[in-house]
Amino acid sequence: MIDRGHHPIEPWRLRETRLSLDNLAQSESLFALANGHIGLRGNLDEGEPYAIPGTYLNSFYEQRPLPYAEAGYGYPEEGQTLVDVTNGKLIRLLVDDSPFDIRYGYVSRHERSLDFRTGILQRDVDWTSQGGKRIRVRSRRLVSLTQRAIAAIEYVVEPVDEPARFVIQSELVANETQPKLSDDPRVAAVLDNPLKPVSHDGGDNGVVLIHCTTKSRQLMAAAMAHEVDAPARYEMDLDVRENWARHTVICQLQPGQSLRVVKYLAYGWSSLRSETAIRDQVAAALASARFSGWEGLVKQQAEFLDDFWDGADVEVHGHPEMQQAVRFALFHVLQSGARAERRAIPSKGLTGAGYDGHTFWDTEGFVLPVLTYTMPGAAADALRWRHSTLNLARERAAVLGLRGAAFPWRTIRGQECSGYWPAGTAAFHINADIAQAVVRYHTATGDDQFIEEVGLELLVETARLWMSLGHHDRHGRWHLPGVTGPDEYSAVADDNVFTNLLAARNLRAAAETAMRHPAKAREFGVDREEEAAWRDAAAAVYIPYDEEIGVHPQSEGFTGYAEWDFEAYKDKYPLLLHAPYFELYRKQVVKQADLMLAMYWCADAFTEEQKARNFDYYERLTVRDSSLSACVQAVIAAEVGHLDLAYDYAYEAALIDMRNLHHNTGDGLHMASLGGAWMAFVAGFGGLREVSGCLCFDPALPHGMSQLVFTIRWRGVRLKVDINGGEVTYSVHNGEDASLTFKHVGEDITVTTDNPVTRALKKRIPLLPRPTQPPGREPRPALAQNERDFV
Amino acid sequence: MIDRGHHPIEPWRLRETRLSLDNLAQSESLFALANGHIGLRGNLDEGEPYAIPGTYLNSFYEQRPLPYAEAGYGYPEEGQTLVDVTNGKLIRLLVDDSPFDIRYGYVSRHERSLDFRTGILQRDVDWTSQGGKRIRVRSRRLVSLTQRAIAAIEYVVEPVDEPARFVIQSELVANETQPKLSDDPRVAAVLDNPLKPVSHDGGDNGVVLIHCTTKSRQLMAAAMAHEVDAPARYEMDLDVRENWARHTVICQLQPGQSLRVVKYLAYGWSSLRSETAIRDQVAAALASARFSGWEGLVKQQAEFLDDFWDGADVEVHGHPEMQQAVRFALFHVLQSGARAERRAIPSKGLTGAGYDGHTFWDTEGFVLPVLTYTMPGAAADALRWRHSTLNLARERAAVLGLRGAAFPWRTIRGQECSGYWPAGTAAFHINADIAQAVVRYHTATGDDQFIEEVGLELLVETARLWMSLGHHDRHGRWHLPGVTGPDEYSAVADDNVFTNLLAARNLRAAAETAMRHPAKAREFGVDREEEAAWRDAAAAVYIPYDEEIGVHPQSEGFTGYAEWDFEAYKDKYPLLLHAPYFELYRKQVVKQADLMLAMYWCADAFTEEQKARNFDYYERLTVRDSSLSACVQAVIAAEVGHLDLAYDYAYEAALIDMRNLHHNTGDGLHMASLGGAWMAFVAGFGGLREVSGCLCFDPALPHGMSQLVFTIRWRGVRLKVDINGGEVTYSVHNGEDASLTFKHVGEDITVTTDNPVTRALKKRIPLLPRPTQPPGREPRPALAQNERDFV
Repeated sequence: MIDRGHHPIEPWRLRETRLSLDNLAQSESLFALANGHIGLRGNLDEGEPYAIPGTYLNSFYEQRPLPYAEAGYGYPEEGQTLVDVTNGKLIRLLVDDSPFDIRYGYVSRHERSLDFRTGILQRDVDWTSQGGKRIRVRSRRLVSLTQRAIAAIEYVVEPVDEPARFVIQSELVANETQPKLSDDPRVAAVLDNPLKPVSHDGGDNGVVLIHCTTKSRQLMAAAMAHEVDAPARYEMDLDVRENWARHTVICQLQPGQSLRVVKYLAYGWSSLRSETAIRDQVAAALASARFSGWEGLVKQQAEFLDDFWDGADVEVHGHPEMQQAVRFALFHVLQSGARAERRAIPSKGLTGAGYDGHTFWDTEGFVLPVLTYTMPGAAADALRWRHSTLNLARERAAVLGLRGAAFPWRTIRGQECSGYWPAGTAAFHINADIAQAVVRYHTATGDDQFIEEVGLELLVETARLWMSLGHHDRHGRWHLPGVTGPDEYSAVADDNVFTNLLAARNLRAAAETAMRHPAKAREFGVDREEEAAWRDAAAAVYIPYDEEIGVHPQSEGFTGYAEWDFEAYKDKYPLLLHAPYFELYRKQVVKQADLMLAMYWCADAFTEEQKARNFDYYERLTVRDSSLSACVQAVIAAEVGHLDLAYDYAYEAALIDMRNLHHNTGDGLHMASLGGAWMAFVAGFGGLREVSGCLCFDPALPHGMSQLVFTIRWRGVRLKVDINGGEVTYSVHNGEDASLTFKHVGEDITVTTDNPVTRALKKRIPLLPRPTQPPGREPRPALAQNERDFV
Repeated sequence: MIDRGHHPIEPWRLRETRLSLDNLAQSESLFALANGHIGLRGNLDEGEPYAIPGTYLNSFYEQRPLPYAEAGYGYPEEGQTLVDVTNGKLIRLLVDDSPFDIRYGYVSRHERSLDFRTGILQRDVDWTSQGGKRIRVRSRRLVSLTQRAIAAIEYVVEPVDEPARFVIQSELVANETQPKLSDDPRVAAVLDNPLKPVSHDGGDNGVVLIHCTTKSRQLMAAAMAHEVDAPARYEMDLDVRENWARHTVICQLQPGQSLRVVKYLAYGWSSLRSETAIRDQVAAALASARFSGWEGLVKQQAEFLDDFWDGADVEVHGHPEMQQAVRFALFHVLQSGARAERRAIPSKGLTGAGYDGHTFWDTEGFVLPVLTYTMPGAAADALRWRHSTLNLARERAAVLGLRGAAFPWRTIRGQECSGYWPAGTAAFHINADIAQAVVRYHTATGDDQFIEEVGLELLVETARLWMSLGHHDRHGRWHLPGVTGPDEYSAVADDNVFTNLLAARNLRAAAETAMRHPAKAREFGVDREEEAAWRDAAAAVYIPYDEEIGVHPQSEGFTGYAEWDFEAYKDKYPLLLHAPYFELYRKQVVKQADLMLAMYWCADAFTEEQKARNFDYYERLTVRDSSLSACVQAVIAAEVGHLDLAYDYAYEAALIDMRNLHHNTGDGLHMASLGGAWMAFVAGFGGLREVSGCLCFDPALPHGMSQLVFTIRWRGVRLKVDINGGEVTYSVHNGEDASLTFKHVGEDITVTTDNPVTRALKKRIPLLPRPTQPPGREPRPALAQNERDFV
């Protein structure tokens, strides 16, 4: 774990002031740059030392066979693994005769800084070579948010005390050596030499290497071009081979002089377009970037981010570290989806290849809520990607003997890649999560065109899936037996409350949306009878409830199971590495928020008392071995009045990667938890809910948070919510005559550009005392003792 | 499927009168010879054509990695696969210059016959070579039931019309070429060249080849020696290499002359003993066999079988095919276990490598009941084998976080080899099945020494497992959630009735047996408190019951599931090849008898009406995709009064391999179903049950069965039960003054050597009409229309 000494607490950037080789993997993830299309891990410019080298193109993957000790019908046979593509980050440096490598010589200054407002990763190093030459290196790196195919690096070197000769080698390298990784199933499969050379070319206007994958037959191009700014005579060479290209700049500098190289990188890939088209595509992108120039790219980047923060910022007063963490979280969520443009948003974004670079329900469940309210176009794009895989989902449903569409539990390109069906195929809730994301997006934006183009069809096909999965019992109740809900320490259970409620919402939304778009609905073969069947099943949905103890069982029978022996396993987390699935499944132990998420997303399906009692019950059972849990627990803890506990969970969600709380940040950042951090503030302390299409707030702050200000986008308007000790002020600030109506603690409120509204907060009185958690799984306090004093 | 034309109906042998290349795999299994230690598939002497070559030594296996697309804690990483060892069956023949190969030339007569009383496979061929020479070959093959390490072949050739030159090559061949097998998961993994040569030697007293496996480090030796009986000058050669040895006999014969070669084969293996010890062991066995001579071996074989049949025969009058089939079944069950001697009895016996040669609960559940009542020593040996793996089972339990012993779902040597935990690890009932087999054996034999040596410890350690698997709910009922019962179309279900009842019996038996053997129990750490806890849990066991429809759900909630769409899948059997597990698990569809087996083994836990109603309910849902089903359905059908239906199921169980009803007899015979055939007659029509340690009968015959006579062994006595139309006669016939007490339809009866007892049968009146089965799964009638006329 990185102690906070590594990362000074600052509101708008993440900085490290010394380089720890032990934490290299983590820092590579934390300092990753991405735009949703290109992802560059925060590897050092000179390539080594590294923990995991990583350059990724969204959805560029290789296939690999999925083996089974015992095969079964419908098991996916091909997996997909994100490929570490041609590395263009590489800039090596020779100082006189010493290669610049921080493992040798002496580093007198090291600093890296990721600025959330400029979107630039800057590095400053003062290094003395083994030969005794002291030099200074400054590099700035960006992955452009405005020019999707472009990344760029400004690299400046200078001698400090005495003249030195510099050789800069700026490279493209395909098929980098991959480290041997652990046996942890959450780590990616290692692909050796996944890229086959197709062609290579270099000249005055840049270099391009074109490669393809063997099985997935995808073609990719990486191109680079350089600008050199030297105070003295310099020479340049260019070498281009199948798997690497090297642009060499040699220059002798005096103290006070500096050599500056700007490297423009362009990436493109396609499974359809020809080699020549791809080559031209990256050449054009490169030309366009050079036309903008380094300063132009920097300016565009800042403008893009200014606009984003204007509509998305979360200010947390009274806890500078939390302030930093929540902006770090928002920045990375933005990077994961900003320019994904109808490609998947993986669970690690493009910051690492953990989970093979796959996309799960994390996207619709935890990332899209943020994007929907802060960058709605990116949310729509992500759902358009889902829609683009609809035929694969229909085929999958047919293989499974079901109707409609069955979206994959994990995938890069749309095919099911889950090799363990009880936590894959059986987790059908992903389909309702997608439907929920469609409804959420439409509710927040009113984007009817989206519904016509993709939304209705997604709702209809998922509704059909649910109809083929559910059945009525002899008393007319509608059941969904044998499915897996969000909690992965239960599986193949009957009538999971979350799944049943979400499926019912999915059915209802499909029926209502079909009624509002009758012509389009007819195109999909929906008739009145089908709509009626959806409504009827939704109305008859069975929700188990344990009357004796006044708690909802997560699934039928759950509250009758033996409780997990928490004491025996108190230092064996995550449990999945220490206990077999069957034991986890048959006991009362919860990996991650399940019923809690149902209470958040279906807030009106539970009474206040039920929420309080359920929260209290499940807190004792929930071990948070998933990064998808703390944020949801924060939201419900806040709702039921445990505001300080909510703060602790918000802290855990936001700090997951900066503090490496799950010990695997090195494999990539946890986008769901970072999205969840936003959720904890906006839905937790802001109390934001959508109930029946209406936006609702019910804010309340924990001890130590003096003020919370956040902005969201709703139907084209930017709404700022400014909460302090006792009251909240709502204001809208974009456009003229903007107006917005919503509820504050049940009261209808309309704000306009000129008329902010202030209301008193409703006081929270928890029904039950603050609950305890399983031993060893108490959340770390958001306010440490010394910080409490500070606050 | 082989039509009956292939197999003339005869009471004491299985015969084929023509050779069908399409059915080669099936005939290789049907004509397999084994003694529980050595297994020889019914491959042709000359080796080719073959479907699957097979020579097996019980428990001689190689390891192979078990791969997983997604790994999980506690998954077994190493599998075990039965090895096709050095083939000693091979005797090639050259006639002048034509190799004897029935694919060439002309076969004017072909007959193979497996005699259940002599235990000899005889083959008679008249063949005309492509060169026009007509010859006659007769071979007789046996795997000795009295000399465990020995097999022998008598091979006789003669020219028919004109002189011919014969070259006989009698061989040992290691690492035979294996056919490419299908993707069916029930088929064995193919091992290429599993045997590494260790040493080879040949001389006047025989040839020995010694090999070892690479990973499992097992050492095996195969040896051969020959006797030649020639009417004229002959020459012999011997070639011995690492992987083969060839004994060549050359002789010119005139019509009327014949050349006879007797081949003695000895096999041995060990994972402990040295190469020299193994070499000596097979040499000694070989010397001993030569000392007995061919005729001696034949005589011993017949004596052994005479004694077996005297205590085991089942006579079925009125249905010659059934008569043949039930003896075929008994013969193969005998072969599978007779001399296994503390090795496993695999689900295919040693007739093929299907299911990788693994042992399942089939052994304790379906094979040991037969052996317990017909060859009790073999049943004890099989349980002693289980006991010998107790430490592995304890280790497995510890890995799973459980106490006591968790026996493997599938294994050769004792390690868990199941690569699919929902139908492997979770099927904990195997432990209760083992306990049940211990109790059954002890009840039937009164063998207290067995209890002291192995039985008690098996009961204690399995009881401890159940205690760590079960828990009391808030009302004090004892539950077993999340386990898999016998029906493999349900998995990971709560409170499976079969498992709960059997676990309770296991606990009760452990407590009672510990009380009867207090000193031994103390050695195992059992105290009064532990005994009491076992009794209490057993008394509190929860048995779900659906009051509304008056039926036991197979597991909690089962009767509330949607019914399988039988119509849609009516020509897609077995369903597991056409539908995903999750769909099978969440619907009302039953692969194999589950609750029915509970009603058979725990007959006193159900009322007569419950049995009738349950049978009726589950008949509609049971597709018999498992070979473990028909026999159990036969037993319960008979009990509830559907005697004709019981007859149909008995027919299916008995004919499974002779008619290749599951289309995979080629991979080996279905020992459980063959054992089940006996069960159908003895427990079904004989009505044999053990209730509270008491032997009970309640016989009844179906239409078309004029008489049923069977003999069982009970506490050292051979009891003959002779049932005809209206009455049954019980007699005992071994030893003087033998006496036996049991119940006939509730009445206590004592028979002695001199006083048989005759009683009237109790008339069966079914409570409900004959039920229907899923479309496409009606059992074929035992009495076909033309046969009904015949009867």
